[in-house]
Formats: sequence, C-alpha cells, structure tokens
Amino acid sequence: MNYRMISHVLGWVISLEGICMLLPFLCALIYGEQNIWLFLICMAICFLAGIPLTLIRPRQKNMFAKEGFVIVALSWILMSIFGAIPFFLSRYIPNFVDALFETASGFTTTGASILTDVEALPKSLLFWRSFTHWIGGMGVIVFLVALLPLSGGDNLHLIRAESPGHSVGKLVPHVKTTAKILYAIYFGLTLLQIGLLKLGGLDWFSSLTLSFGTAGTGGFGVLNSSIASYSPYVQWVITIFMIIFGVDFTFYYCILMRRFKNALKMEEVRTYIGVILACVFLVCLNVSSQIPNIWENIRYSAFQVASIITTTGFSTTDFDLWPQFSKMILLGLMFLGACAGSTGGGIKVSRLLVLVKSIIKEVRVLVHPKSTIKVKLNGRPLEHETLRGISVFFMAYCFVFAASLLLISLDNLDFTTNFTAVAATIGNIGPGLSLVGPTRNFACFSSLSKVVLTLAMIIGRLEIFPILILFSGKIWKR
Amino acid sequence: MNYRMISHVLGWVISLEGICMLLPFLCALIYGEQNIWLFLICMAICFLAGIPLTLIRPRQKNMFAKEGFVIVALSWILMSIFGAIPFFLSRYIPNFVDALFETASGFTTTGASILTDVEALPKSLLFWRSFTHWIGGMGVIVFLVALLPLSGGDNLHLIRAESPGHSVGKLVPHVKTTAKILYAIYFGLTLLQIGLLKLGGLDWFSSLTLSFGTAGTGGFGVLNSSIASYSPYVQWVITIFMIIFGVDFTFYYCILMRRFKNALKMEEVRTYIGVILACVFLVCLNVSSQIPNIWENIRYSAFQVASIITTTGFSTTDFDLWPQFSKMILLGLMFLGACAGSTGGGIKVSRLLVLVKSIIKEVRVLVHPKSTIKVKLNGRPLEHETLRGISVFFMAYCFVFAASLLLISLDNLDFTTNFTAVAATIGNIGPGLSLVGPTRNFACFSSLSKVVLTLAMIIGRLEIFPILILFSGKIWKR
Repeated sequence: MNYRMISHVLGWVISLEGICMLLPFLCALIYGEQNIWLFLICMAICFLAGIPLTLIRPRQKNMFAKEGFVIVALSWILMSIFGAIPFFLSRYIPNFVDALFETASGFTTTGASILTDVEALPKSLLFWRSFTHWIGGMGVIVFLVALLPLSGGDNLHLIRAESPGHSVGKLVPHVKTTAKILYAIYFGLTLLQIGLLKLGGLDWFSSLTLSFGTAGTGGFGVLNSSIASYSPYVQWVITIFMIIFGVDFTFYYCILMRRFKNALKMEEVRTYIGVILACVFLVCLNVSSQIPNIWENIRYSAFQVASIITTTGFSTTDFDLWPQFSKMILLGLMFLGACAGSTGGGIKVSRLLVLVKSIIKEVRVLVHPKSTIKVKLNGRPLEHETLRGISVFFMAYCFVFAASLLLISLDNLDFTTNFTAVAATIGNIGPGLSLVGPTRNFACFSSLSKVVLTLAMIIGRLEIFPILILFSGKIWKR
Repeated sequence: MNYRMISHVLGWVISLEGICMLLPFLCALIYGEQNIWLFLICMAICFLAGIPLTLIRPRQKNMFAKEGFVIVALSWILMSIFGAIPFFLSRYIPNFVDALFETASGFTTTGASILTDVEALPKSLLFWRSFTHWIGGMGVIVFLVALLPLSGGDNLHLIRAESPGHSVGKLVPHVKTTAKILYAIYFGLTLLQIGLLKLGGLDWFSSLTLSFGTAGTGGFGVLNSSIASYSPYVQWVITIFMIIFGVDFTFYYCILMRRFKNALKMEEVRTYIGVILACVFLVCLNVSSQIPNIWENIRYSAFQVASIITTTGFSTTDFDLWPQFSKMILLGLMFLGACAGSTGGGIKVSRLLVLVKSIIKEVRVLVHPKSTIKVKLNGRPLEHETLRGISVFFMAYCFVFAASLLLISLDNLDFTTNFTAVAATIGNIGPGLSLVGPTRNFACFSSLSKVVLTLAMIIGRLEIFPILILFSGKIWKR
C-alpha cells in the first residue's frame, strides 16, 4: 500500500474543499451576514489539515487499484467530516452526527435532511449545503485528476473507483482530458439551467442553489416546501434538467462531437427515456382522481417521476399521500436510478437492463441447453467479467440494504419508514415514504441509525466496493 | 416439444391426485360426516380427466429439459386446480379463486390461508388441506418417477425441475432409486413425528395433520390459533421437526449410509444451524421485555425462528406485535429459507452462502486484480455455470418479487402488508406482517391479487424458471 501517495492525494482533497468554501464565504459577504468569520475559520481548518499532507511526496508514482479504492473511500469520508464543520461551528446543527449526516447527504447528492426548518439557516450555509451537491455530483476526484500533476495512466483507477456506473472508460486517450471534458459538460449544462431559472424570475441565490441541487441530482432545496411553491415554468425547467443530468455524459460528448448515430444507439439512454415515459403515464392514470386537472396531473407526475428516477429527490407535492400503486412505482425507480456515467445514483439503468437480459438468456439456455447466447449491450456482447461484476454488484447492494435495514430497525420505527429510508439513502434519492416522506425529514432516527444511513449514502454513491474494501483486513497488510 | 409425453405424465399426475383423495374420504367415513359423497365425486372428476390422458402413449420415450420444465409447471397448476374442487363443491370456499389460492398454498407448502375460521371446516376437508402439504413437500413428480415406467435417465430432468435447490443430483446411480430413497426418508421422519405427537396426548387426527404440515414445511393448522394452544411438549416436538425437515435430505442419506464425515462436512447444514442459533439468541434478547420468563422466551423465539426459516409458517404467538428488530430478523429469514434439497422454500441457505462468498471473492479480486480465487462449497470449487445459475436465480427472484408487489399494490393496502405478503408467498412461508400477520389471513386481497399471489407461490415452489419458461413464447414452437 502506497501510504505516501494516499496521504498526498487526501491532502489535496481537503485543501480543495477549503478552496470551495470561498463561495459560501462570498455569499455571507454579499448578504452581509452576522457570522462573517464562519467560513474563513473552516477554510483555515481545511488548509491546516490538508496542506501539510500534500507536502508528503509519494516516492513511487504508480498507483494500483487498491490505492484507488482506498483514496476514494477515505476522500469521501474526510470530505463529509470537514464539510460538516460549518454546520457544527455555527450551532445551526449542534449535534456533530447530524451535521455529518447532512454533509454526507450533500456530497453524495442524496438530499436527505435532518433539518426541520431549512429556511432558518443563513444563506451562506444554504449555499454551502447546495454547493456540496454540485461538488459531489461529478466527483471531487474527477476534478483533482483534471488538475493534479499525478502520473497519467494510473489515474484511471481513481476515476473508476469514484464514478457511478460499471462502464467508465476514457472518452479520449488521456484520462486528464476525459476528466476535463466531463467537467466542462457539467459546468456548461449547469450554467444553462442557471440562466433559464433566472429568466423565470428567480433571484441569483435561488437560481444557483436550485441548479446545484439539480445538476448533482442532489435534492436539497432552500425552502421548506422544496419546489412546490415555485412557478410551473420553474418546475418544468427543473423537471427537464433533472432528466438531462440523469443521462450518461458520454451521450452529450457524442453529440458535441457530432457522432449522432453513436448517441442514438445508446441502449441505456433509450431505456431510461422509455421508463420515464411509461412511469409518468401510469402515475398520471393512478393519481387522476386526486389531481383532476390533466395538465397539473402531468406536471406533478412528471416532476415526481423525474425527481426519483434521477435520484434527485426534489418534490412539488407530498407523494406519500398518493395511492399505493404510484408509491410502488416511485419505490421501484429508487432502486433503478439513472444512467451510469450520469450524476444520478441507484443501481443504474444499464445494470438492470443487463440483469434482465441475463435472466432472459438463462431461460433460453434452460430450454436449449446447447445454445450459446451472449448478453449484449449496444449491440456488442458483454464480457464474462463485466456480467459477473454487475451481478455481484446487485447482490452486494441487496446485502448492504438488508444489513442497514436490520440495524436501523433497532429504533423500532415502522417498516415503511425504515425500508424507504434505506432505499432513499443507499440510492442517493433523499425522501422516502411515511416518516421520511417528502414533507418530513430524518430527524426521527437515533444517532446510531444516522451513522448507518450516512454510511449507506457513501456506500451507495461510491457503488459499494470502495467502502467494502476499506473494511477488508487484508488490504492494510504490507 | 413432445406433446404426447406431456399429456401422458399430466394424466398420471391428475389420477394420482384422485387416489390421494381416498384418505380424506376415509376421514369423512370415520368421523361420519354428512357430505360423504364429496371426495368420491372429486375422485371421479380426477379419474375422468386423468385416465384418458394416461392412455396417450408417447411415441418417443426420450425427454429434454424443456419437456421436464413444462410438465412440472403444468402439473403444479393442474394439481392446484383439481385439488381446489373439494373446497369449492362443498361450498366452504364458495369462490373458486379463493379455493385455488388455498389449494396452491397447500401444495406449495406455503400455508397462507384465506379462511377466517378454520375450525368451521369438516375434518375431511382439514385433512385434505394438510395432506396437500405432505404431497407437495417432497413433490408429486418425485413420487411419480419412483413409480412410473418412464425411461430411466431422462427423468432426472423432471426431478431437477421440481426439486428445491440448485444441486439436485443422484444419490445413487438410478434416478428411480434416488426418488424412492428420498420418499422413504420423508415417510420415516413423518411417522416418527406422528408417534411423538401421539405420545404427547394428541388424537390421531391432530397428530397426522400437524405432522403433514411440519413435514412439508407447510403451516396449515387445524385450529384458528395455529399451534399456540398446544402443550409446550407438542410445541417443542414441532420446533425440532420443523428444523429437521429444513435440512438437506442428503444429510440423512449420508447418516443412514454411516458416512458421518460427509454429513458433518455439509457447509450448508452447518450454516443453517448456525443461523438458527444466532437468530434465536438475538430474538430472545430483543423480546425479553415482552416475555420475561426465560424458558417461555426461548420456546417462543425458537418456535418462531424455526417456523420462518424452514418456511413452515406455524405460529405460537403473534410475532407481528414483536419489536421491529425481531420482525426484521424474521423477514430476513423469509428470504433466506431452508436448505436446498429439503422440503423448505425461500432462496435457500446454500444459494445465499454462495452469493456471500461471491461478494467476498469480488472484493479480493478488486484488491488483487491478478489473483485467481474460486468460490468453493463443501471444499470444492464451484463451476462457472453453477455460479451464474445461482446469481441469475437471485435476480429473477427479486424481479418476480418486485412485479408481484407492484401488481398487488393496486389494492391500495399498506406497504408492510403488501411486501410481507409477497415475501410470505414467493418464499412459501404463509403468514407475513400487518394485515397478513400470524393472526390474520389473506382474505383482505382482491381476486386479482390472489391470482398474483397464487402464481407467486407456485413460482417460488418451483424455483421460478419452470413457470418463466411456460410464459416464453419460443418453447411452444415446433
């Protein structure tokens, strides 16, 4: 294990987080907030912890897969800890476990909150809260790889360990360039949304924070009513941008490069759009008695479906009051999630697509034992290792789910609350049903459960294995 | 597709069911019931439908995997339909969908009931209800293979398609002999339990019906209070025999053959015992405030844990009133199920053991990409095909689960009821939580949901693929 390399990169991560805190500091300045020193102190803490670590130069520049996983896992845990300091120091979240939950929920783009009154927070803290979504959406490691003078090829391990999806490859031969392209698309789309929201009459603060929450598919709002009190125009803009940020970014790269055929061939994106249309249709039918106006019905249904499938977690209505069938569709979407290579969470459309194809293949093989059928994606047969990786991922997801559910059931809350709380955290959605429904929050849980759910968020965001590896004893032996 | 062969075997299945009805007929005679003709009429119906079909002689005697699956799937559907006739004709279950649900629940050894007052039924119908558990436990096809003059080697397809577990092999070179040995062990253990219950002061009727329910890991009782009103001795006998019938029958064969070392080496059986001990311990701790007496506590906890892990579904207390943590342990056991090669349902201990090992292997491979680790069971490395089969089974289980949950949610009952109703039917357990808890029943569901849950029971009992294959269009093409 290359400990010096790990320390070096972690130092950069913490320092970078300190730099990111410049924005909420500016926000506090602009709005003339009382506690102007808060973010300066937090920045100082980050630099004091981070810069000395960056000075540890790795003796060997090469990095193996295990270092990649460990760096990514520890980065996300440290980011959450250091990011929680502003909430804690300001006494707006006086319990550190709560502050940690809120920050991890931000970075992992979950959007689950323990706050009962969001509007009580000063604007700078709300800005930081939403900004963590934007940082976490594309990943801080991707950003570092684009900047840091680490040795070229091995950084792929880092990006692979952090990026959602099983098929992270290089868009272009250089990893550094890939990282830059991804961030450029991310940045551009976010700017576009900010502009459109501004056109809809929102102020800069709301435009920025809501765009951060959408781009990272996070879900933290700045009002207690989430998105419900904004105009239909704003709701539609957010609906469409949630869907946009749930698409594999390779799709946009293909479009930028004018490879339209490649873009249209992407099976995952087509399935994703198909699922959205089908679910909106079913939910519309199912809630039509509750929302008689057809256009309102479509707006509410589309918003909620888009919000859950992209694992954003904004809401414009209390869908916990919807009929059970619609709730089950939304619960199913919590597991499905968005496309691999997007900022969304969940199991990912492509994985479930491959799993369904594997089942169909198994049925065919059982009927004709001598047939040799291959599972294909985008017309190309998948390798045995990819298939195994996807199915093991699915099982690990289920096992982590079951373990989390068992642990938080010690609080003796009802089953619907517990089940959807785990689904909403491990899938990085945010709200669940019952006590953690869209108008409620996670304050009802004990500290132990909050720690479990915080871990579930990070495990879900990093797609399980980096954290599992951290817990495996073997890796720490020299 | 060998249609003549399929018709021939199905004819035997229906005829055999008619013969089985002789026992409830005798029961009606002994207790001098009013409706003495009921089971004679039903037998006549079975023979009228079955015997003509047996006369269709297959031109080719060889059978392929697909015929095996189709025969088994259709057998279980037809068995449930013909077995429902006594309930329907007697007007004790006037709705045929309900009668079908109750009978499928019997044959699949689920034990979920739509009856609100079991004690209102005449003894002959209660006997038939419990006897379906015993028939379904080991499987009617296994019995047929032991008797029918079909060509030898190909019958393995039939046994494989019907028997629970992925590792059904031949105990001895001849399939016929294997089938006979399995039935002999089953018969012997059932007799032993009947004797022990008789010693405990039960009458013959109760001893027989409860033993049928235990041996098949079914769960239908003859009292509204299930097993709660019997003596502690009877409860302990049933606890132990539930655990006994949840063990892979190969274990008993090894013991009979004095291959004690082989028996003790069986990893699945050891895990199964370990899980039972651990869960009893945790539940004991968790319910200690509700049941202060330590011996009562152990008796209740052991009974409920044994009942759920073996997927029997008897109960001695309303565990729906237990703390959430204990309920989650029981819910987890519903998914786990008993050993492969036993009469129990669920995913099976060995499958989940292999899945956990696959996850551990994946973590190791990620850390050391060049390592070549094999997943082993009982010290032997598993083949790639076996691993793939197990993981695809697990996924298919999850997908069938999700589809059933979505369909029954149209009834708009609460999530706990729906979720545990599907878990309890697809895993062949019986009771769930909330509205389908141990003191409740499945009468609250609509006819559509009952059909879905009936299918879930059969899909669970036949381990998914035979029924999935039935729905695949390709198989019906010549």
